Amino acid sequence: MAADAASSSPPAAITCRAAVAWGPGQPLVMEEVEVAPPGAMEIRVKVVSTSVCRSDVTAWQSKAQPDLFPRIFGHEASGVVESVGEGVTEFQVGDHVLTVFIGECQSCKHCVSGKSNMCQKLGLERKGVMHSDQMTRFSVKGKPVYHYCAVSSFSEYTVVHSGCAVKVGLTVPMDRVCLLSCGVSAGLGAAWNVADVSEGSSVVIFGLGTVGLSVAQGAKLRGASKIIGVDTNPEKQEKGKAFGVTDFINPNELSEPVQQVIKRMTDGGADYSFECVGDTGVVSTALQSCSDGWGVTVTLGVPKAKPEVSAHYAFLLSGRTLKGSLFGGWRPKSDLPSLVNKYADKEIQVDGLVTHDIPFGDINRALELMLESKCLRCVIHMSQ
Amino acid sequence: MAADAASSSPPAAITCRAAVAWGPGQPLVMEEVEVAPPGAMEIRVKVVSTSVCRSDVTAWQSKAQPDLFPRIFGHEASGVVESVGEGVTEFQVGDHVLTVFIGECQSCKHCVSGKSNMCQKLGLERKGVMHSDQMTRFSVKGKPVYHYCAVSSFSEYTVVHSGCAVKVGLTVPMDRVCLLSCGVSAGLGAAWNVADVSEGSSVVIFGLGTVGLSVAQGAKLRGASKIIGVDTNPEKQEKGKAFGVTDFINPNELSEPVQQVIKRMTDGGADYSFECVGDTGVVSTALQSCSDGWGVTVTLGVPKAKPEVSAHYAFLLSGRTLKGSLFGGWRPKSDLPSLVNKYADKEIQVDGLVTHDIPFGDINRALELMLESKCLRCVIHMSQ
Repeated sequence: MAADAASSSPPAAITCRAAVAWGPGQPLVMEEVEVAPPGAMEIRVKVVSTSVCRSDVTAWQSKAQPDLFPRIFGHEASGVVESVGEGVTEFQVGDHVLTVFIGECQSCKHCVSGKSNMCQKLGLERKGVMHSDQMTRFSVKGKPVYHYCAVSSFSEYTVVHSGCAVKVGLTVPMDRVCLLSCGVSAGLGAAWNVADVSEGSSVVIFGLGTVGLSVAQGAKLRGASKIIGVDTNPEKQEKGKAFGVTDFINPNELSEPVQQVIKRMTDGGADYSFECVGDTGVVSTALQSCSDGWGVTVTLGVPKAKPEVSAHYAFLLSGRTLKGSLFGGWRPKSDLPSLVNKYADKEIQVDGLVTHDIPFGDINRALELMLESKCLRCVIHMSQ
Repeated sequence: MAADAASSSPPAAITCRAAVAWGPGQPLVMEEVEVAPPGAMEIRVKVVSTSVCRSDVTAWQSKAQPDLFPRIFGHEASGVVESVGEGVTEFQVGDHVLTVFIGECQSCKHCVSGKSNMCQKLGLERKGVMHSDQMTRFSVKGKPVYHYCAVSSFSEYTVVHSGCAVKVGLTVPMDRVCLLSCGVSAGLGAAWNVADVSEGSSVVIFGLGTVGLSVAQGAKLRGASKIIGVDTNPEKQEKGKAFGVTDFINPNELSEPVQQVIKRMTDGGADYSFECVGDTGVVSTALQSCSDGWGVTVTLGVPKAKPEVSAHYAFLLSGRTLKGSLFGGWRPKSDLPSLVNKYADKEIQVDGLVTHDIPFGDINRALELMLESKCLRCVIHMSQ
């Protein structure tokens, strides 16, 4: 059904399959969509693999933006460049790429600062359109279909800005490296870039999903001596061990607040704590779980409810630091290639986070597994 | 009325004047108090000067701990060692000292870490007693009088732990250097130790009291190029200039939120923002006033109401850092001598923050001036 890559120029619109959400939380419907040619500085990508991230599911279920349907979700993906728009010199047809949900224009104040990944031109897109012209590149029977995070990888083909893609080597497994497009990188970066975990330190991680386990992996590679994983799912105990978790706590099995237990285990509080659940209430618990004087709490999760983080001022005045990051602080173009190399060189684990391989036609199963917390990453194979 | 310093040993109890609070917010009453001899590792100090800090006034007015009256407030002070308790080798009778409201035992996990001033033995004392035996050293007609922050400098004589005092040179003016015992050091340390303000950066300071002006001074000495002061008192505009404030904003004169104005003035947000008001709502405004990607907000104030700091999670996820400190992160024994030297060498301003010199007998006037926001620091001269 999908058109194959065409190398003639200028590229024409193509028709392909996409999993379209017609309303908040409604099962995705496989539709024939028209994908416009890439505009100036854009590329059209034949998606090879896309894994499902918790934030896809949160956004799909959210009733906050009812006008942005129909919509194509998905942002954690790998693919092959099918065609390039005017002015694109960085990519050629046939290049393998990772899509990224925050881009790097390499020319704005933030990009040139060298200390921020909050690109002012290609930052997190929230209106369901392309950064350049505030329009969509998808349509179903002439009706525009909105994007998600300017990526929309739940489609056989998608258009992204060239600043929102990163080239990867042709030998890297596409159906695994896609996890570096968001979740795994977010966790590793939180440990390395944001918290800057030090050797011999104590770390506590709330939520052992893909992001939390990647924080654990990052902390282990930095030589942390105690890595406490906190999760209400007892199955995460074994999984955690494989990624460096040394001690597991199930808060449901405790008769006292989890922060008290952590304080005992760490002689007063952990050096670093990470909120990877997506619950602002847990941010406060994480802050209370780390040490006076030098404790650092990093919040990574996107909350499903109650967007306000709150904490008693005394936890800050006594010397704690609360910080957050998107994408682990990585600048995608500048930094992601080195992470991909680490994966290729087997210095970091990625494959172990994939619990399900699912054909594109069964994508709703992946959403259900995520909703039921029965998976880490489901990889959607677009050609199956 | 006061007994003079006695060098005979063992020291006996002495009787002197102290300004005693008999209930929350009740005017202080000049009483004859008995001051016990210093216990082991304690020193008795003849207070020379004590300045009044906002937190003295907040604690005096608070109805949260009604059982801790009668009480002697005051913690920002200088004095002369009158007698020393068993085991004290660091101090001798006649030494000039600053009292400090958080001590440094130099042996606990935090003190030996080199990265914390949250001493586990001599940390912030909240129960109105001495750290060592949970007893008071003051009494009025046999009735115990509670301490404040284990200092209680609104008395001609007081007893402090030897870990809560720092020796200063005999030539340093006692009636000015007392400001380094809390407020001025807190502000300088917030800029230098906590935020680590960099050259050429932009800084915004909410609240231009003694602490806020000291943040401004610290930022200026670090070479910040834009120092925005925010205060509802228009008189602070001129005072701010003297301490390095380059731009002044009175929020009452604005028709839009102050953070919007600051974002325009700083091309997207300040590099650093400081909350020096003691209002948790302002912490959120300060966070919103600093930049995505790298902005750092430091909270210094002790709130008079609503102890919960809250902020939308997106302000953290987009790369901001929120941190706090007590006493500017300084370790009193390790770090304060170098600050005192900077004052002696005229590298830092202190004198300009003293707006009133007040005899001890008129101490209630100082509290009123602070309540009415009509002063920066009032220095109480104990011998007048």
